[in-house]
Amino acid sequence: MLSAEEIAKTAVAASSVLRPVSNEARVSALKRIYSTLIANKASILEANKLDLENAEKNNIAGPLIKRLDLSKSDKFDAMCQGVLDVAELPDPIGKVTFASKLDDGLDLYRITCPIGVLLVIFESRPEVIANITALAIKSGNAVILKGGKESLKTFTEVSKLIREALSETEIPSGAVQLIESRQDVADLLKQDQYIDLVVPRGSNELVRNIKENTKIPVLGHADGLCSAYINGDADVDMAVRIVLDSKTNYVAACNAIEGLLIQKGSAMVKILPAIAKALLEAGVTLKVTSEIAEALKTAGVSDDKKIVPAEDKDFETEFLSLVIAITAVDDVDAAIRHINAHSSKHTDVIVTSSKDTAERFMSGVDSAGVYWNASTRFADGFRYGFGTEVGISTSKIHARGPVGLEGLTCYQYQLRGTGQVAGDYMGAGGKKEFKHEKIDL
Amino acid sequence: MLSAEEIAKTAVAASSVLRPVSNEARVSALKRIYSTLIANKASILEANKLDLENAEKNNIAGPLIKRLDLSKSDKFDAMCQGVLDVAELPDPIGKVTFASKLDDGLDLYRITCPIGVLLVIFESRPEVIANITALAIKSGNAVILKGGKESLKTFTEVSKLIREALSETEIPSGAVQLIESRQDVADLLKQDQYIDLVVPRGSNELVRNIKENTKIPVLGHADGLCSAYINGDADVDMAVRIVLDSKTNYVAACNAIEGLLIQKGSAMVKILPAIAKALLEAGVTLKVTSEIAEALKTAGVSDDKKIVPAEDKDFETEFLSLVIAITAVDDVDAAIRHINAHSSKHTDVIVTSSKDTAERFMSGVDSAGVYWNASTRFADGFRYGFGTEVGISTSKIHARGPVGLEGLTCYQYQLRGTGQVAGDYMGAGGKKEFKHEKIDL
Repeated sequence: MLSAEEIAKTAVAASSVLRPVSNEARVSALKRIYSTLIANKASILEANKLDLENAEKNNIAGPLIKRLDLSKSDKFDAMCQGVLDVAELPDPIGKVTFASKLDDGLDLYRITCPIGVLLVIFESRPEVIANITALAIKSGNAVILKGGKESLKTFTEVSKLIREALSETEIPSGAVQLIESRQDVADLLKQDQYIDLVVPRGSNELVRNIKENTKIPVLGHADGLCSAYINGDADVDMAVRIVLDSKTNYVAACNAIEGLLIQKGSAMVKILPAIAKALLEAGVTLKVTSEIAEALKTAGVSDDKKIVPAEDKDFETEFLSLVIAITAVDDVDAAIRHINAHSSKHTDVIVTSSKDTAERFMSGVDSAGVYWNASTRFADGFRYGFGTEVGISTSKIHARGPVGLEGLTCYQYQLRGTGQVAGDYMGAGGKKEFKHEKIDL
Repeated sequence: MLSAEEIAKTAVAASSVLRPVSNEARVSALKRIYSTLIANKASILEANKLDLENAEKNNIAGPLIKRLDLSKSDKFDAMCQGVLDVAELPDPIGKVTFASKLDDGLDLYRITCPIGVLLVIFESRPEVIANITALAIKSGNAVILKGGKESLKTFTEVSKLIREALSETEIPSGAVQLIESRQDVADLLKQDQYIDLVVPRGSNELVRNIKENTKIPVLGHADGLCSAYINGDADVDMAVRIVLDSKTNYVAACNAIEGLLIQKGSAMVKILPAIAKALLEAGVTLKVTSEIAEALKTAGVSDDKKIVPAEDKDFETEFLSLVIAITAVDDVDAAIRHINAHSSKHTDVIVTSSKDTAERFMSGVDSAGVYWNASTRFADGFRYGFGTEVGISTSKIHARGPVGLEGLTCYQYQLRGTGQVAGDYMGAGGKKEFKHEKIDL
């Protein structure tokens, strides 16, 4: 068995070979993976059956077992099709994002390139391994994979087939490595000399744990604390619809709202009661401040069980369930302050009919997504049109918000000269001046 | 005295106010800083004199004392002018870098924004504080400053004046805070909850030390291990000029080369001797492998003192002096492997007359700068035309290579809707499809 350092070094070596491989060759490798998976459906489903038997033996809950089952409906075919879909996305590598003529015959280009070596840690859904492999290869990165242990047999079979498929392409098999035990992850998180980026896909607890245990940059979000702010001039129906969708469309999602801010004044009378009624009807528990409780009472909205007092910590809790914390704020500036202090900088929305107020909110709130009159549930790579999603980042540097293939790239500066030396130019001993003329692309 | 956490929280609060401030107001604040500094030249130079007296008392070396002296030649005026120069740069904030119509009345924009709170740790040159303040304010970021202790009196006076100037602008004084002791830095490096980016400007040792002691992302380079590879078909004169400039133009720079790779074969006979002679004449010590030593001997190039055997570690040593390590490699692929294994991913150059070989090198070498027929000394923000330089990054994510104001920005997604909810669209329960049409900017 390879040590974590050996695994990381293998990935670096593979990355060095993969780096200059053309998009054509990367697409052709993905197509070969596709056909190899299709041709070996039987052995993959056989391995998957073993995982399912194990899961039953270990008394794993029914819904989770259902997620593990690759033989259900079109899951297997969808997994394979996903590889082709990623293959067909525009090439994220080799794009010129800046070009300048420094002087005659001295041209500077900024060009997107692979990051290098990724460590991707993901949940047990068996189809995810194919998706991540496709993303890594499409973006020219070597990847070390660690999936949830419930699908280990399936992952092992799929990764074996992927490596077999790669062995007949320009891309070395070392570009995709599967690791198995928890210990390996802990050791790999120490390989910051070789691994360039960790992408955890899974529970918030997993992400937080990884962030706390590595020096390698982490692409992901530990929390999804999103809020909606209802300005006094908001359209009542729109406010109700947006809050309801943002809260209840899929409560376990990171882009669901956990907090609701209502502007003091007319909105407490006109809008809050309508929202509260709709939320209660949808089965949502409202954790409210005394001011909100008072306003609801005045409006005749009552529910002894589902309207309960909010504590401070409720405004920093990701409920991920049919619960929402509600408070009143003076105005948009107070809303901005509340959100910047309590949110996880994921996605926050203002509902208002005033463009000026919306602009103030969007330039003031320090979150990856700042929305005006639209549900926070739109914060998603597919909905943004990125074709696929690597994850959603709440980091303030590199990639932010829903991350597509672009988030798995960085850039290099290529300088193409004809023998120029710095000593001939001003600032380094010489007299020549730079031209710094934009090159049209 | 404020605790590190209080300092960090003050910066966060100031950042929240500064974030939406217009470019006009940021420029006007920088102009006020400029005129305040000019008007208080006497008190600044008085403080600077105290620093100089202290330095003499502490037997600090002459060249360093010279660097501390703000009264010499036009240093004070240049410091102030630098603030105006940064003010006049294009606004890095609010630029739309992606725009897509998700559906009718549902437009997505990706817009550059400030990162938030920066911690900048810099050397003793007194004029740097004004430059960093200007960069931070221009990019809409709050900054916590820590300068070398030799200029403490000057820094204290300048920062006091900067805060006085800011108090008459839209930007809160808390946007610029100076801290003094080493202990403060250690405590601030723990405030990853509040501080978004650390920018160390100073010795490699400082940068390495900071990288090892914080979870906050660090923008900078711990090492500048650059190399030149001379392909067999290189023009001899060009190879000599580029190697000489890359090595000797400024040996203490991070973009100076420390290693030289020569292709085995004709280049060992035609090119190596010419380069070696030029380097020896420039006073450079050559640390050479046995193969290189043999080739030099054959060519009649000898110097008992300045041609010495290379050890393995010489190819991973940043000499920062008139020393270079030289080895022979089979071809461009071997050069790529050597550089990817030994370099610090800063800047590397190939000298060749073959475009194909150059392309292979530039797409294969995993460094921030990959050059063809030009000195590595061009790796610099001013030479790249960025107007100013925040630093040079060897990181693989966020900003890479010379970093201008752009490196102090991130982005947000603004979604401008008219009441849309996700539940109406496919994938979230509804039937509507997304349009994903590019919006022309």
